[in-house]
Amino acid sequence: MIKKIDFYFDFISPYSYLAHKRIVSLNNRDKFNYKAILLGGLHNLGGITAPAFNERKMKNMRNDCMLIAEKNKIDFTWNEKFPINSLYLMRGYLFINHNKKDKFFDVCFDAYWKNNFDISKEENIKKILIECDIETEDFEMGIKDKKIKDELKDLTNIAFQNDVFGAPTFVINQKLFWGQDRLEYALDELNN
Amino acid sequence: MIKKIDFYFDFISPYSYLAHKRIVSLNNRDKFNYKAILLGGLHNLGGITAPAFNERKMKNMRNDCMLIAEKNKIDFTWNEKFPINSLYLMRGYLFINHNKKDKFFDVCFDAYWKNNFDISKEENIKKILIECDIETEDFEMGIKDKKIKDELKDLTNIAFQNDVFGAPTFVINQKLFWGQDRLEYALDELNN
Repeated sequence: MIKKIDFYFDFISPYSYLAHKRIVSLNNRDKFNYKAILLGGLHNLGGITAPAFNERKMKNMRNDCMLIAEKNKIDFTWNEKFPINSLYLMRGYLFINHNKKDKFFDVCFDAYWKNNFDISKEENIKKILIECDIETEDFEMGIKDKKIKDELKDLTNIAFQNDVFGAPTFVINQKLFWGQDRLEYALDELNN
Repeated sequence: MIKKIDFYFDFISPYSYLAHKRIVSLNNRDKFNYKAILLGGLHNLGGITAPAFNERKMKNMRNDCMLIAEKNKIDFTWNEKFPINSLYLMRGYLFINHNKKDKFFDVCFDAYWKNNFDISKEENIKKILIECDIETEDFEMGIKDKKIKDELKDLTNIAFQNDVFGAPTFVINQKLFWGQDRLEYALDELNN
Protein backbone atom coordinates (compact mmCIF):
# COMPACT_ATOMS: atom_id res chain seq x y z
CA MET A 1 0.00 0.00 0.00
CA ILE A 2 1.35 3.42 -0.97
CA LYS A 3 2.04 5.67 2.00
CA LYS A 4 0.05 8.92 2.02
CA ILE A 5 -0.16 12.06 4.13
CA ASP A 6 -3.39 12.45 6.13
CA PHE A 7 -4.79 15.93 5.48
CA TYR A 8 -7.39 16.99 8.06
CA PHE A 9 -9.68 19.64 6.60
CA ASP A 10 -12.95 21.52 6.95
CA PHE A 11 -14.40 23.56 4.07
CA ILE A 12 -14.58 26.49 6.46
CA SER A 13 -10.79 26.70 6.78
CA PRO A 14 -9.14 29.19 4.38
CA TYR A 15 -5.67 27.83 5.12
CA SER A 16 -6.89 24.31 4.22
CA TYR A 17 -8.09 25.69 0.88
CA LEU A 18 -4.76 27.41 0.22
CA ALA A 19 -2.85 24.26 1.19
CA HIS A 20 -5.04 22.17 -1.11
CA LYS A 21 -4.51 24.52 -4.03
CA ARG A 22 -0.75 24.41 -3.48
CA ILE A 23 -0.92 20.60 -3.41
CA VAL A 24 -2.82 20.61 -6.71
CA SER A 25 -0.36 23.01 -8.34
CA LEU A 26 2.51 20.77 -7.15
CA ASN A 27 0.68 17.87 -8.83
CA ASN A 28 0.69 16.08 -5.48
CA ARG A 29 -2.99 15.37 -4.88
CA ASP A 30 -2.49 11.61 -4.98
CA LYS A 31 -0.04 11.85 -2.08
CA PHE A 32 -2.78 12.99 0.32
CA ASN A 33 -5.58 11.24 2.11
CA TYR A 34 -8.22 13.93 2.79
CA LYS A 35 -9.87 13.47 6.17
CA ALA A 36 -13.04 15.34 7.09
CA ILE A 37 -13.35 16.87 10.54
CA LEU A 38 -15.69 19.47 12.00
CA LEU A 39 -13.30 22.28 12.88
CA GLY A 40 -15.72 24.00 15.26
CA GLY A 41 -16.19 20.73 17.14
CA LEU A 42 -12.46 20.15 17.27
CA HIS A 43 -11.86 23.63 18.69
CA ASN A 44 -14.52 23.00 21.33
CA LEU A 45 -12.88 19.73 22.35
CA GLY A 46 -9.48 21.45 22.58
CA GLY A 47 -10.69 24.54 24.44
CA ILE A 48 -9.48 26.69 21.57
CA THR A 49 -10.93 30.04 20.51
CA ALA A 50 -10.72 30.17 16.71
CA PRO A 51 -8.88 33.19 15.26
CA ALA A 52 -12.16 34.19 13.60
CA PHE A 53 -13.43 35.17 17.05
CA ASN A 54 -10.55 37.49 17.92
CA GLU A 55 -10.59 40.92 16.27
CA ARG A 56 -6.83 41.22 15.64
CA LYS A 57 -6.31 37.59 14.69
CA MET A 58 -9.23 37.77 12.27
CA LYS A 59 -7.88 40.90 10.59
CA ASN A 60 -4.44 39.31 10.31
CA MET A 61 -5.85 36.03 8.97
CA ARG A 62 -7.73 37.85 6.21
CA ASN A 63 -4.65 39.80 5.10
CA ASP A 64 -2.40 36.80 5.49
CA CYS A 65 -4.59 34.49 3.40
CA MET A 66 -4.89 37.06 0.62
CA LEU A 67 -1.13 37.51 0.62
CA ILE A 68 -0.43 33.76 0.52
CA ALA A 69 -2.89 33.48 -2.39
CA GLU A 70 -1.17 36.33 -4.23
CA LYS A 71 2.34 34.93 -3.66
CA ASN A 72 1.23 31.47 -4.81
CA LYS A 73 -0.96 32.71 -7.68
CA ILE A 74 -4.09 31.12 -6.21
CA ASP A 75 -7.47 32.45 -7.34
CA PHE A 76 -8.88 33.34 -3.90
CA THR A 77 -11.58 35.63 -2.48
CA TRP A 78 -11.92 36.31 1.21
CA ASN A 79 -15.45 35.20 2.03
CA GLU A 80 -17.30 37.98 3.82
CA LYS A 81 -19.63 35.35 5.30
CA PHE A 82 -16.76 33.81 7.25
CA PRO A 83 -17.20 31.97 9.55
CA ILE A 84 -20.33 29.96 8.78
CA ASN A 85 -21.61 26.55 9.79
CA SER A 86 -20.09 23.93 7.48
CA LEU A 87 -21.83 20.98 9.15
CA TYR A 88 -24.10 19.95 6.25
CA LEU A 89 -21.37 20.02 3.65
CA MET A 90 -18.91 18.17 5.87
CA ARG A 91 -21.53 15.48 6.50
CA GLY A 92 -22.24 15.54 2.78
CA TYR A 93 -18.58 14.83 2.02
CA LEU A 94 -18.83 11.66 4.11
CA PHE A 95 -22.14 10.59 2.56
CA ILE A 96 -21.22 11.06 -1.09
CA ASN A 97 -20.06 8.10 -3.15
CA HIS A 98 -16.37 7.60 -3.57
CA ASN A 99 -16.46 8.40 -7.30
CA LYS A 100 -17.95 11.86 -6.70
CA LYS A 101 -15.98 12.81 -3.56
CA ASP A 102 -13.13 14.67 -5.27
CA LYS A 103 -15.52 16.63 -7.48
CA PHE A 104 -17.71 17.56 -4.49
CA PHE A 105 -14.63 18.52 -2.50
CA ASP A 106 -13.39 20.88 -5.23
CA VAL A 107 -16.80 22.41 -5.92
CA CYS A 108 -17.51 23.10 -2.22
CA PHE A 109 -14.08 24.57 -1.55
CA ASP A 110 -14.19 26.77 -4.68
CA ALA A 111 -17.74 27.87 -3.90
CA TYR A 112 -16.65 29.23 -0.53
CA TRP A 113 -13.09 30.46 -1.10
CA LYS A 114 -13.06 31.36 -4.78
CA ASN A 115 -16.65 32.21 -5.73
CA ASN A 116 -17.64 33.88 -2.45
CA PHE A 117 -20.85 31.86 -1.89
CA ASP A 118 -22.44 31.47 1.51
CA ILE A 119 -22.28 27.67 1.54
CA SER A 120 -24.50 27.39 4.60
CA LYS A 121 -27.49 28.58 2.49
CA GLU A 122 -29.80 25.97 1.01
CA GLU A 123 -29.93 27.63 -2.43
CA ASN A 124 -26.14 27.57 -2.69
CA ILE A 125 -25.88 23.99 -1.48
CA LYS A 126 -28.37 23.11 -4.25
CA LYS A 127 -26.13 24.78 -6.85
CA ILE A 128 -23.19 22.72 -5.59
CA LEU A 129 -25.22 19.51 -5.83
CA ILE A 130 -26.36 20.30 -9.39
CA GLU A 131 -22.78 20.95 -10.45
CA CYS A 132 -21.76 17.59 -8.96
CA ASP A 133 -24.77 15.77 -10.44
CA ILE A 134 -25.99 14.71 -6.99
CA GLU A 135 -29.73 14.35 -6.24
CA THR A 136 -30.83 16.93 -3.66
CA GLU A 137 -33.24 14.48 -2.07
CA ASP A 138 -30.56 11.81 -1.62
CA PHE A 139 -28.21 14.40 -0.17
CA GLU A 140 -30.77 15.73 2.29
CA MET A 141 -31.55 12.24 3.52
CA GLY A 142 -27.86 11.41 3.72
CA ILE A 143 -26.89 14.33 5.92
CA LYS A 144 -29.73 13.52 8.34
CA ASP A 145 -28.69 9.88 8.60
CA LYS A 146 -27.57 9.00 12.13
CA LYS A 147 -24.71 6.92 10.73
CA ILE A 148 -23.31 9.94 8.87
CA LYS A 149 -23.83 12.28 11.83
CA ASP A 150 -22.00 9.87 14.11
CA GLU A 151 -19.23 9.33 11.57
CA LEU A 152 -18.33 13.04 11.47
CA LYS A 153 -18.42 13.22 15.27
CA ASP A 154 -16.28 10.09 15.56
CA LEU A 155 -13.74 11.32 12.99
CA THR A 156 -13.45 14.61 14.86
CA ASN A 157 -13.05 12.84 18.21
CA ILE A 158 -10.41 10.48 16.83
CA ALA A 159 -8.51 13.40 15.30
CA PHE A 160 -8.59 15.16 18.68
CA GLN A 161 -7.34 12.03 20.46
CA ASN A 162 -4.45 12.00 17.98
CA ASP A 163 -3.44 15.56 18.96
CA VAL A 164 -5.04 17.34 15.98
CA PHE A 165 -6.26 20.78 17.09
CA GLY A 166 -6.65 22.78 13.87
CA ALA A 167 -6.85 22.70 10.09
CA PRO A 168 -5.06 22.03 7.90
CA THR A 169 -3.17 19.37 9.81
CA PHE A 170 -0.91 16.92 8.03
CA VAL A 171 0.01 13.60 9.65
CA ILE A 172 2.62 11.24 8.26
CA ASN A 173 4.80 8.64 10.05
CA GLN A 174 3.01 9.55 13.31
CA LYS A 175 4.34 13.09 12.95
CA LEU A 176 1.94 16.00 13.02
CA PHE A 177 2.37 19.22 11.02
CA TRP A 178 -0.05 22.07 11.60
CA GLY A 179 -0.79 24.81 9.09
CA GLN A 180 -0.40 25.36 5.37
CA ASP A 181 3.09 26.69 6.12
CA ARG A 182 4.12 23.13 7.00
CA LEU A 183 3.09 21.51 3.72
CA GLU A 184 6.71 21.23 2.58
CA TYR A 185 7.81 19.70 5.89
CA ALA A 186 5.07 17.06 5.56
CA LEU A 187 6.13 16.30 1.97
CA ASP A 188 9.76 16.03 3.13
CA GLU A 189 8.66 13.54 5.79
CA LEU A 190 6.76 11.49 3.19
CA ASN A 191 9.74 11.41 0.84
CA ASN A 192 12.26 10.58 3.57
CA MET B 1 16.72 57.76 7.00
CA ILE B 2 17.00 54.09 5.98
CA LYS B 3 13.72 52.21 6.12
CA LYS B 4 13.69 49.26 8.53
CA ILE B 5 11.31 46.50 9.53
CA ASP B 6 9.95 46.77 13.08
CA PHE B 7 10.44 43.42 14.81
CA TYR B 8 8.31 43.05 17.97
CA PHE B 9 9.87 40.51 20.31
CA ASP B 10 9.93 39.09 23.81
CA PHE B 11 12.78 36.85 25.00
CA ILE B 12 10.15 34.32 26.01
CA SER B 13 9.07 33.71 22.41
CA PRO B 14 10.80 30.74 20.72
CA TYR B 15 9.57 31.78 17.29
CA SER B 16 11.09 35.24 17.83
CA TYR B 17 14.42 33.56 18.59
CA LEU B 18 14.22 31.40 15.49
CA ALA B 19 13.28 34.41 13.35
CA HIS B 20 16.18 36.41 14.78
CA LYS B 21 18.65 33.61 14.09
CA ARG B 22 17.40 33.36 10.50
CA ILE B 23 17.82 37.13 10.15
CA VAL B 24 21.39 36.88 11.42
CA SER B 25 22.23 34.01 9.08
CA LEU B 26 20.78 36.04 6.17
CA ASN B 27 23.12 38.86 7.25
CA ASN B 28 20.04 41.11 7.58
CA ARG B 29 20.25 42.28 11.18
CA ASP B 30 20.69 45.92 10.15
CA LYS B 31 17.37 45.81 8.30
CA PHE B 32 15.43 45.35 11.56
CA ASN B 33 14.43 47.65 14.35
CA TYR B 34 13.96 45.41 17.41
CA LYS B 35 11.03 46.52 19.56
CA ALA B 36 10.53 45.19 23.06
CA ILE B 37 7.04 44.19 24.18
CA LEU B 38 5.78 42.12 27.09
CA LEU B 39 4.12 39.22 25.30
CA GLY B 40 2.07 38.14 28.33
CA GLY B 41 0.70 41.66 28.66
CA LEU B 42 -0.07 41.82 24.95
CA HIS B 43 -1.97 38.52 25.11
CA ASN B 44 -3.95 39.82 28.07
CA LEU B 45 -4.88 42.98 26.19
CA GLY B 46 -5.97 40.94 23.17
CA GLY B 47 -7.91 38.31 25.09
CA ILE B 48 -5.59 35.63 23.71
CA THR B 49 -4.68 32.37 25.41
CA ALA B 50 -1.03 31.69 24.57
CA PRO B 51 -0.33 28.30 22.95
CA ALA B 52 1.81 27.47 25.99
CA PHE B 53 -1.42 27.14 27.96
CA ASN B 54 -3.08 24.65 25.63
CA GLU B 55 -1.87 21.05 25.87
CA ARG B 56 -2.02 20.22 22.14
CA LYS B 57 -0.76 23.60 20.95
CA MET B 58 2.14 23.43 23.40
CA LYS B 59 3.14 19.95 22.23
CA ASN B 60 2.94 21.08 18.61
CA MET B 61 4.90 24.27 19.27
CA ARG B 62 7.73 22.32 20.88
CA ASN B 63 8.01 19.87 17.97
CA ASP B 64 7.53 22.64 15.42
CA CYS B 65 10.27 24.86 16.87
CA MET B 66 12.72 21.97 17.04
CA LEU B 67 11.95 21.08 13.43
CA ILE B 68 12.36 24.69 12.21
CA ALA B 69 15.69 24.85 14.05
CA GLU B 70 16.83 21.59 12.47
CA LYS B 71 15.77 22.63 8.94
CA ASN B 72 17.50 26.00 9.34
CA LYS B 73 20.57 24.62 11.16
CA ILE B 74 19.92 26.77 14.23
CA ASP B 75 21.50 25.70 17.52
CA PHE B 76 18.33 25.47 19.62
CA THR B 77 17.21 23.75 22.81
CA TRP B 78 13.59 23.63 23.88
CA ASN B 79 13.61 25.25 27.31
CA GLU B 80 11.91 22.97 29.82
CA LYS B 81 11.22 26.04 31.99
CA PHE B 82 8.94 27.49 29.31
CA PRO B 83 6.99 29.67 29.88
CA ILE B 84 8.58 31.90 32.50
CA ASN B 85 8.24 35.55 33.45
CA SER B 86 10.49 37.63 31.20
CA LEU B 87 9.54 40.97 32.79
CA TYR B 88 12.92 41.83 34.35
CA LEU B 89 14.93 41.08 31.23
CA MET B 90 12.51 42.93 28.96
CA ARG B 91 12.71 45.96 31.26
CA GLY B 92 16.47 45.46 31.28
CA TYR B 93 16.59 45.63 27.51
CA LEU B 94 14.97 49.07 27.66
CA PHE B 95 17.22 50.26 30.48
CA ILE B 96 20.56 49.20 29.02
CA ASN B 97 22.69 51.69 27.10
CA HIS B 98 22.45 51.68 23.33
CA ASN B 99 26.02 50.39 22.92
CA LYS B 100 25.30 47.24 24.96
CA LYS B 101 21.77 46.51 23.71
CA ASP B 102 22.68 44.11 20.90
CA LYS B 103 25.06 42.17 23.12
CA PHE B 104 22.44 41.93 25.91
CA PHE B 105 19.80 40.89 23.37
CA ASP B 106 21.95 38.05 22.02
CA VAL B 107 23.10 36.85 25.44
CA CYS B 108 19.54 36.78 26.87
CA PHE B 109 18.08 35.02 23.86
CA ASP B 110 20.88 32.43 23.72
CA ALA B 111 20.68 31.89 27.49
CA TYR B 112 17.02 30.88 27.20
CA TRP B 113 16.75 29.17 23.80
CA LYS B 114 20.22 27.76 23.26
CA ASN B 115 21.75 27.23 26.69
CA ASN B 116 18.55 26.16 28.48
CA PHE B 117 18.86 28.59 31.41
CA ASP B 118 15.89 29.65 33.51
CA ILE B 119 16.29 33.38 32.83
CA SER B 120 13.76 34.33 35.49
CA LYS B 121 16.25 33.21 38.19
CA GLU B 122 18.45 35.84 39.83
CA GLU B 123 21.62 33.74 39.58
CA ASN B 124 21.15 33.31 35.84
CA ILE B 125 20.35 36.99 35.30
CA LYS B 126 23.62 37.75 37.11
CA LYS B 127 25.52 35.47 34.72
CA ILE B 128 23.99 37.34 31.79
CA LEU B 129 24.98 40.69 33.28
CA ILE B 130 28.56 39.56 33.88
CA GLU B 131 28.83 38.35 30.28
CA CYS B 132 27.58 41.75 29.09
CA ASP B 133 29.82 43.67 31.50
CA ILE B 134 26.82 45.35 33.14
CA GLU B 135 26.84 46.24 36.85
CA THR B 136 24.23 44.17 38.75
CA GLU B 137 23.43 47.10 41.03
CA ASP B 138 22.78 49.48 38.13
CA PHE B 139 20.61 46.86 36.44
CA GLU B 140 18.55 46.19 39.58
CA MET B 141 17.92 49.90 40.06
CA GLY B 142 17.10 50.32 36.39
CA ILE B 143 14.43 47.64 36.23
CA LYS B 144 12.73 49.10 39.32
CA ASP B 145 12.69 52.59 37.83
CA LYS B 146 9.14 53.82 37.21
CA LYS B 147 10.21 55.33 33.90
CA ILE B 148 11.39 51.94 32.62
CA LYS B 149 8.33 50.12 33.99
CA ASP B 150 6.05 52.60 32.26
CA GLU B 151 8.05 52.46 29.04
CA LEU B 152 7.55 48.68 28.67
CA LYS B 153 3.84 49.06 29.45
CA ASP B 154 3.51 51.92 26.95
CA LEU B 155 5.38 50.06 24.20
CA THR B 156 3.12 47.04 24.72
CA ASN B 157 -0.01 49.21 24.67
CA ILE B 158 1.09 51.03 21.52
CA ALA B 159 1.86 47.72 19.80
CA PHE B 160 -1.61 46.48 20.72
CA GLN B 161 -3.21 49.65 19.37
CA ASN B 162 -1.34 49.00 16.12
CA ASP B 163 -2.92 45.52 15.82
CA VAL B 164 0.08 43.54 17.09
CA PHE B 165 -1.16 40.46 18.97
CA GLY B 166 1.82 38.07 19.06
CA ALA B 167 5.55 37.64 18.56
CA PRO B 168 7.41 37.79 16.37
CA THR B 169 5.50 40.46 14.48
CA PHE B 170 7.09 42.36 11.62
CA VAL B 171 5.72 45.75 10.53
CA ILE B 172 6.85 47.56 7.41
CA ASN B 173 4.99 50.10 5.25
CA GLN B 174 2.05 49.88 7.69
CA LYS B 175 1.73 46.19 6.84
CA LEU B 176 1.78 43.62 9.60
CA PHE B 177 3.27 40.14 9.28
CA TRP B 178 2.83 37.70 12.13
CA GLY B 179 5.11 34.74 12.81
CA GLN B 180 8.59 33.62 11.85
CA ASP B 181 7.04 32.01 8.76
CA ARG B 182 6.39 35.51 7.41
CA LEU B 183 9.97 36.76 7.63
CA GLU B 184 10.43 36.46 3.85
CA TYR B 185 7.17 38.32 3.14
CA ALA B 186 8.33 41.18 5.39
CA LEU B 187 11.70 41.30 3.62
CA ASP B 188 9.91 41.31 0.23
CA GLU B 189 7.82 44.25 1.43
CA LEU B 190 10.97 46.11 2.54
CA ASN B 191 12.69 45.53 -0.80
CA ASN B 192 9.65 46.45 -2.86
